[in-house]
Amino acid sequence: MSSQPAQPSAVGARELPANITVLGSGSWGTTFAKVIADAAVERGDHDLAVMLWARRDDVAAAINERHVNPEYLDEIDLPESIRATTDLKAAVEGAEVIVLAVPAQHVREQLHALKDALGEDTVIVSLVKGLERGTDERISEICASELDLDPENFAVVSGPNLAMEIARREPTATVVASASEQTAAKIAKLTNCSYFRPYRNTDVTGVEIGGVVKNVIALAVGLCDGRGFGDNSKASIITRGLAETTRLAAALGARQETMAGLAGLGDLVATCASPLSRNRTAGRFMGEGYRADELSSVMRQTAEGVKSVSAVVELAHRMRVEMPISEAMNAVVSGALDVESLATLLLARDLKSEASS
Amino acid sequence: MSSQPAQPSAVGARELPANITVLGSGSWGTTFAKVIADAAVERGDHDLAVMLWARRDDVAAAINERHVNPEYLDEIDLPESIRATTDLKAAVEGAEVIVLAVPAQHVREQLHALKDALGEDTVIVSLVKGLERGTDERISEICASELDLDPENFAVVSGPNLAMEIARREPTATVVASASEQTAAKIAKLTNCSYFRPYRNTDVTGVEIGGVVKNVIALAVGLCDGRGFGDNSKASIITRGLAETTRLAAALGARQETMAGLAGLGDLVATCASPLSRNRTAGRFMGEGYRADELSSVMRQTAEGVKSVSAVVELAHRMRVEMPISEAMNAVVSGALDVESLATLLLARDLKSEASS
Repeated sequence: MSSQPAQPSAVGARELPANITVLGSGSWGTTFAKVIADAAVERGDHDLAVMLWARRDDVAAAINERHVNPEYLDEIDLPESIRATTDLKAAVEGAEVIVLAVPAQHVREQLHALKDALGEDTVIVSLVKGLERGTDERISEICASELDLDPENFAVVSGPNLAMEIARREPTATVVASASEQTAAKIAKLTNCSYFRPYRNTDVTGVEIGGVVKNVIALAVGLCDGRGFGDNSKASIITRGLAETTRLAAALGARQETMAGLAGLGDLVATCASPLSRNRTAGRFMGEGYRADELSSVMRQTAEGVKSVSAVVELAHRMRVEMPISEAMNAVVSGALDVESLATLLLARDLKSEASS
Repeated sequence: MSSQPAQPSAVGARELPANITVLGSGSWGTTFAKVIADAAVERGDHDLAVMLWARRDDVAAAINERHVNPEYLDEIDLPESIRATTDLKAAVEGAEVIVLAVPAQHVREQLHALKDALGEDTVIVSLVKGLERGTDERISEICASELDLDPENFAVVSGPNLAMEIARREPTATVVASASEQTAAKIAKLTNCSYFRPYRNTDVTGVEIGGVVKNVIALAVGLCDGRGFGDNSKASIITRGLAETTRLAAALGARQETMAGLAGLGDLVATCASPLSRNRTAGRFMGEGYRADELSSVMRQTAEGVKSVSAVVELAHRMRVEMPISEAMNAVVSGALDVESLATLLLARDLKSEASS
């Protein structure tokens, strides 16, 4: 751990960045801005500023004037140190840390727009849980290809992190992963507070893949809800879902322990257990008969699993990894398979050994 | 496989045993008897007989006369091929398979009582999810020490198996483990039916430990419910709970894949997700302020986690395995720790790396 010189001020010589920008004012982006602001207050850091970029004027105005995000977190009072803007260039100017909290399919265009304003040492933190369609790239890969970002300046945050619970200050643990231990430690310190506890990890790939595939598995669990299946079925799908996630992650060089940890198993279980989860909700609607292209009529926020599932399956094919649950969900989302057939498919397997041992 | 003289019956030369006895008429024992009876009907085996041993006369009478178990499964019609008795000796006489479905602390006395009636090739199948207090023995070990049973004649069945869902014929997968592949295959065939799908495994220790410790972890998750914690906290406890279960299992020679499978992760997730789980319910009551010795006033069935937790902790000490959640639950159950302190303890850990890598 880094040490600080003794100072008469609470923070002394600044060890942590003071200018943080969060791109995206959905529930998780807004909540993460609040975590950073709350953590600064708790450690007596009164110089830290959080800028939240919002797409919509009315959301930015509500955050600046009333300190609430009326769209996604209307019951939560936000710290006054969080300011909002719809001007992307202004938002990122001088930012030492830029947090990505936009849908995966928008990340590349956002990075392209902010590229020139990026400082040399700016750290990019991804909260995004999806793969880019077409390239099948993870967010770390998009940052590398689009920004030529040094991997040491990239971190991903993921874990059992239902945003609304964190916004309500319910105790939560998470994982901060970076190729650089120092970067991971910096982001961990920046976010560590009484209700939010980050654990460091260097397995960026494992943490990213865990976050991506759990949304696909949550669709399948939601679909079971929609078809009226019970907890025995759902627990089987979670178990097999983590197994196929782990196979893909391992093929990409990730560590097994990451997948058994908070960003793998933990995130999957929280997402699949919670009625707050968008992906589980999307799956439930599909189980009840909605087509994927009809979900926007019943849900306000993007279900990343619906957007990313085709890229997950493509990546699995490329890596020659079997992912039967993801394959089945992709077939349902694309309309190639109806949900009745899916239910049978998800649960039917030959009577055989559990593991090939 | 045991063989019988060829008969002009639907199954032809009997490949599977025809006389099955289930000891214990709680919800799981009764449901398992129903699975075996239903599976026989599905494969056209009309010679199979299931005898259910009940402690209470009125339960045995209701099963024989009305084909219901009024105590635990009163909404479920049982197959007429299930007969019940309170006479233990008569129940096990001539049984080719004896299924143990009694509380862990009663197993040794039951085995002692049936010892003389046991055939040489009788297979014992355990549904029990606990350790014996005092000896810290698993059911397989009690069978070996009390009956001098050949490990090849022992099997354990465990998985995401909430009894009520199975009784309602909801699709369910399970694991049948035996040191003998043949024995595992025989029990798998005996129970395989349209709604119940057994997978074979040879890791008896892993399957037993998964079933034992998940009840302790479910107590902790229930306790979070009782204290009003959310899904983020509970997912963290499930994640760390499986990690400590896996450490203990590995120290005892079990395989990691078993713990990541249906009898480890799957069972844990089903138990912790379901409002039907006794152990989660017991934890919730404790979270709300009931002492362990007061649980019998609010719950009808035994919560195995409460009974086994001291033996789990003793075994962990003996094997030099760290099990912080089990330790904490043991302290609460024994009255050494109040639930307020426990909640803090379960969630507080130093800001550090997730895995020592």
